[in-house]
Amino acid sequence: MISFESDYIAGAHPQVLKHLCETNLEVLSGYGSDIYCKTAADKIKKACECEDAEVFFLAGGTQTNSVVISTMLKDYEGVVAAVTGHVSAHEAGAIEYTGNKVLTIPQHDGKIDPKELEEYLRGFYADQNHEHMVFPGMVYISHPTEYGTLYSKQELEKISNICRAFEIPLFMDGARLGYGLMSKQTDVSLPDIARLCDVFYIGGTKVGALCGEAVVFTKNNTPKHFMTMVKQHGALLAKGRLLGVQFDALFTNDLYFEISRHAIEMAERLKDVLIEKGCTFYLESPTNQQFIVLEDKKLELLKGKVGYSFWEKADNTHTVIRLATSWSTKQEDIDKLSELL
Amino acid sequence: MISFESDYIAGAHPQVLKHLCETNLEVLSGYGSDIYCKTAADKIKKACECEDAEVFFLAGGTQTNSVVISTMLKDYEGVVAAVTGHVSAHEAGAIEYTGNKVLTIPQHDGKIDPKELEEYLRGFYADQNHEHMVFPGMVYISHPTEYGTLYSKQELEKISNICRAFEIPLFMDGARLGYGLMSKQTDVSLPDIARLCDVFYIGGTKVGALCGEAVVFTKNNTPKHFMTMVKQHGALLAKGRLLGVQFDALFTNDLYFEISRHAIEMAERLKDVLIEKGCTFYLESPTNQQFIVLEDKKLELLKGKVGYSFWEKADNTHTVIRLATSWSTKQEDIDKLSELL
Amino acid sequence: MISFESDYIAGAHPQVLKHLCETNLEVLSGYGSDIYCKTAADKIKKACECEDAEVFFLAGGTQTNSVVISTMLKDYEGVVAAVTGHVSAHEAGAIEYTGNKVLTIPQHDGKIDPKELEEYLRGFYADQNHEHMVFPGMVYISHPTEYGTLYSKQELEKISNICRAFEIPLFMDGARLGYGLMSKQTDVSLPDIARLCDVFYIGGTKVGALCGEAVVFTKNNTPKHFMTMVKQHGALLAKGRLLGVQFDALFTNDLYFEISRHAIEMAERLKDVLIEKGCTFYLESPTNQQFIVLEDKKLELLKGKVGYSFWEKADNTHTVIRLATSWSTKQEDIDKLSELL
Amino acid sequence: MISFESDYIAGAHPQVLKHLCETNLEVLSGYGSDIYCKTAADKIKKACECEDAEVFFLAGGTQTNSVVISTMLKDYEGVVAAVTGHVSAHEAGAIEYTGNKVLTIPQHDGKIDPKELEEYLRGFYADQNHEHMVFPGMVYISHPTEYGTLYSKQELEKISNICRAFEIPLFMDGARLGYGLMSKQTDVSLPDIARLCDVFYIGGTKVGALCGEAVVFTKNNTPKHFMTMVKQHGALLAKGRLLGVQFDALFTNDLYFEISRHAIEMAERLKDVLIEKGCTFYLESPTNQQFIVLEDKKLELLKGKVGYSFWEKADNTHTVIRLATSWSTKQEDIDKLSELL
Repeated sequence: MISFESDYIAGAHPQVLKHLCETNLEVLSGYGSDIYCKTAADKIKKACECEDAEVFFLAGGTQTNSVVISTMLKDYEGVVAAVTGHVSAHEAGAIEYTGNKVLTIPQHDGKIDPKELEEYLRGFYADQNHEHMVFPGMVYISHPTEYGTLYSKQELEKISNICRAFEIPLFMDGARLGYGLMSKQTDVSLPDIARLCDVFYIGGTKVGALCGEAVVFTKNNTPKHFMTMVKQHGALLAKGRLLGVQFDALFTNDLYFEISRHAIEMAERLKDVLIEKGCTFYLESPTNQQFIVLEDKKLELLKGKVGYSFWEKADNTHTVIRLATSWSTKQEDIDKLSELL
Repeated sequence: MISFESDYIAGAHPQVLKHLCETNLEVLSGYGSDIYCKTAADKIKKACECEDAEVFFLAGGTQTNSVVISTMLKDYEGVVAAVTGHVSAHEAGAIEYTGNKVLTIPQHDGKIDPKELEEYLRGFYADQNHEHMVFPGMVYISHPTEYGTLYSKQELEKISNICRAFEIPLFMDGARLGYGLMSKQTDVSLPDIARLCDVFYIGGTKVGALCGEAVVFTKNNTPKHFMTMVKQHGALLAKGRLLGVQFDALFTNDLYFEISRHAIEMAERLKDVLIEKGCTFYLESPTNQQFIVLEDKKLELLKGKVGYSFWEKADNTHTVIRLATSWSTKQEDIDKLSELL
Repeated sequence: MISFESDYIAGAHPQVLKHLCETNLEVLSGYGSDIYCKTAADKIKKACECEDAEVFFLAGGTQTNSVVISTMLKDYEGVVAAVTGHVSAHEAGAIEYTGNKVLTIPQHDGKIDPKELEEYLRGFYADQNHEHMVFPGMVYISHPTEYGTLYSKQELEKISNICRAFEIPLFMDGARLGYGLMSKQTDVSLPDIARLCDVFYIGGTKVGALCGEAVVFTKNNTPKHFMTMVKQHGALLAKGRLLGVQFDALFTNDLYFEISRHAIEMAERLKDVLIEKGCTFYLESPTNQQFIVLEDKKLELLKGKVGYSFWEKADNTHTVIRLATSWSTKQEDIDKLSELL
Repeated sequence: MISFESDYIAGAHPQVLKHLCETNLEVLSGYGSDIYCKTAADKIKKACECEDAEVFFLAGGTQTNSVVISTMLKDYEGVVAAVTGHVSAHEAGAIEYTGNKVLTIPQHDGKIDPKELEEYLRGFYADQNHEHMVFPGMVYISHPTEYGTLYSKQELEKISNICRAFEIPLFMDGARLGYGLMSKQTDVSLPDIARLCDVFYIGGTKVGALCGEAVVFTKNNTPKHFMTMVKQHGALLAKGRLLGVQFDALFTNDLYFEISRHAIEMAERLKDVLIEKGCTFYLESPTNQQFIVLEDKKLELLKGKVGYSFWEKADNTHTVIRLATSWSTKQEDIDKLSELL
């Protein structure tokens, strides 16, 4: 059986695993104070062209969103996000659990619109009752979004400028950042992101690691006693090396970018096959996640042969499914899918 | 200056204040264990035709919403509400502050639509990823709504049936309940509400008391150790008598209903004046809050002469304002307003 | 039946109630923006000899502790308190409920010892693992304490200096502050408190009001958007006048101090009676709460004749009870008690 | 340099790493639904002789304590723990952060005393004011404790019986459980623990894994929607296999017990050396952590040659340090230490 179920169906990229094995017997101190956390952070800062950045490693996406948002927001603030943003819809209320509201604005293929964001923020402060409401304290965007779409550099610049005008930080959820950076259709680079965002994270779990996300604070704005708050969230690993070593491997010899480029190439071929087979795309995605609308009958035929993700029912007889590529996708997987469609 | 700014611009109804004065020197034990809390609860149970009910007194609306919702929900649950519901929009994130998400559905003149509610609940459980989402654990409605509108008995029955089918409680925010019950256009009685809701509250602050809301659990469903949780919220008054005595007065000789009827009559006259003067209504409200769209120029003329609430900008030259009546509204106030318009 | 059960067994002092009645029909805006909240605040600032102070009104003691502590602490901080401090022992976990730990140190007749406080703080920062622990972010003292005892000016100065050395605020819970200020055995004045504390509150509920505590921020240190956070706690009264009017009365013509002095005088007479009757004091209290150890047999005889508070079992045959005086205690109550003992 | 700094200074036991490598390319579904999470759970249930148990995998100790305690407690409840319990002292307030109080009782070499526990619980319910206090809702013990000490079977039985009498669950933090089970001085087996505790966890991070703790609910008492709440805590790994595979290895061919036995043997030899060298033991520990009091001068000599943990200052010229063994400790490390002492 071939699988496009998600980008986290395989273990770690072999290079990442190799580095874990090679360093396994080294005696290293705990809680992120080891040398690999340091070298990984240095390599990331260099890749970001942001020597001032501060880099921390956490285990997963929801955890990272929860820790970053709750440590950066005041109690009276909420985080502005697209209604389809991961923090809004699919994190079991993790943001609210620690006390902050997600303030939703409309989504357009998973993205927020700079104009609508500005109107929302302006409207908030214009409202005479706004002291009885939750203050917008941060803007959250995912890039790629939950729908695989990307912001253009111009869009990011607009959003960043709005955030600065309203003096609130811009936070980018980069759980799949590699796929965004290696897309054929992007004009956004990692240094652009470091420049335009106040904080963002470079996803590892979905881009070749067993687990791990690298949080980058870019403006000397790490929340005070951040490590203590990571501990308070239950998110501080005793063997912090597990994350440091993996990111050290990912940011050595551009492995992170290579992995991502491979997944994008596989996604392009996948798209070609899907187009060739006359599939209807749910939306146009330039990254590793592709969304198509299939007849339920056809879907039935794929069961047991192809792994995919159910997305939502399109209508009574059609379903939207997601097919994802990753570092582990092989050309032959796509060939087999082509035969089955 | 006359004022229609809100229904909480005056102190307590004279009868309520009189009862506070008369009982002032009595030695009473604290924390709601006094005789007036008991007699008030008994009178309320009788008015609800629900002898099994359990009644508690809290100080204000947001506090009551916060306490009821957080004590009835599990951590993995959220409260379903109209996007304009008070808990969603105007409580400074009080619900999220103690960990629960407000799950918003569309509003129609401030109300939720039973069909849309059912679709939302059905859709939630049909979603294959729903274990990564916040479970709907309660339905919140306000009656009258924030726009002064009312549910019909049929609508309430539908909503109640849906809640029972999905085994989640129905919670009615009755901060202005009296005005709903005494509306000329309602077919909903207090016993209907007690029958159809699992928990609701009878607003005092906006209906003749200095402060106070009476929470009614109707189905032997008071959360365990409720009083301890009220204390934990900082909501347990040492002199619980302050609330008991006021509600004892409000539910003696139908004072609560009389007060509300007076406000409704005043609202009807107000509407007549507004219609007569050619005002544009923002929406049709059958209760004590009336919403009109005024030219900004006209509004300017009223400043310093008439108290009103800013609601929102209608467009660049018009504003929506709210005019509210209460027990303290006098016919002459309306006559003066008529002259000024 | 006479009662010394607590200092909140009667309603409001007649002058307070009178002021509520006189102002009842005035049209006043909501949420603490009325003129009485302003005049009351002004009078309090004057009494504190601290014109820069900012004064806010809340409804009760636990609520005030919860709001002040949670708005002043960061998530990684806790509040240092005596193990018998109200926030530690008798608030149903209100401080922890909103996320902050109470860091307890030993108590001595309800008080903390400056030397032990300093050792605790010094020890915390000396601990090499302190980043895995809760940072001390505030010191909480009650004055009078839960045992009726008082800090001397010298003690307060020491504690205040320690707090400044460690750059953490000193918060005084003054739920019974009047009784402390009017004690025959105190050298601490209200201006002293305003000078030495960063925030404190002047209790109304237990000193003549129906409800209400006046929070005083003395160092231009009101938490940002404090009103929004009060709302978020469910603690913002729509009719804020209820609190403003009462404190306006309490701080007119020194009523607050007069009430307190009366209670202290009654407590002194009570003590004389208790001494005369050979009662064993549990500890020496210079304020309105007196604690005695009674034989259970004797206690049995008082039941139904004298109201008192159970404090704790002293041993199998003796019980510690609390007798409290207040503005409403009369000489004849004490005479009757004398007969009964 | 040799190191006894902690039991998490090396990576994973080679067998654990090997299993990760062998399974790395297998396509597995996410969030703990993979086959290795299942087989690992089955093996653990068998080792516990508790076929009804439900087993979940989390990443670290603080995370596990936070998730278990917050999902099992009601808002009005706290967790009873020794004052030195990890949840009380060294988790940065993680328990309070999500709203529950840690109710501390005295410690004796890190353990709670059954008699004192019973007195505490009895006293709580006897207190007439207990509705204003935090209810004891769970008992937390660590085994081995933070001081390496162990409960006897008789002690565990007493504690378990007390918990049942008061109808609250007993939770054992087994972050170092293996070392407790393999101690020469224990009469407690894994099935005993499964029988006597309502929930406990088998530590992986400190016993041979890169990360991971196996939570075992033994009485059909898994909190409802546990997985959703794990997600809400940010604790649900997308690649759940990381935990499943490691525990599958640890519970194959008794690896977990072998690893632990090795560490205990090394600890015994370490003890012999320490005794031989005339070291003063801080307390008697039967597990892999040994605590000794060293002259600061002597300690100075070890710096750069031996890794150890600072525990606390004993006095002005002495320090308590901890030396820990693990699966990776070698006989030659101890020989070298012997030379250095």
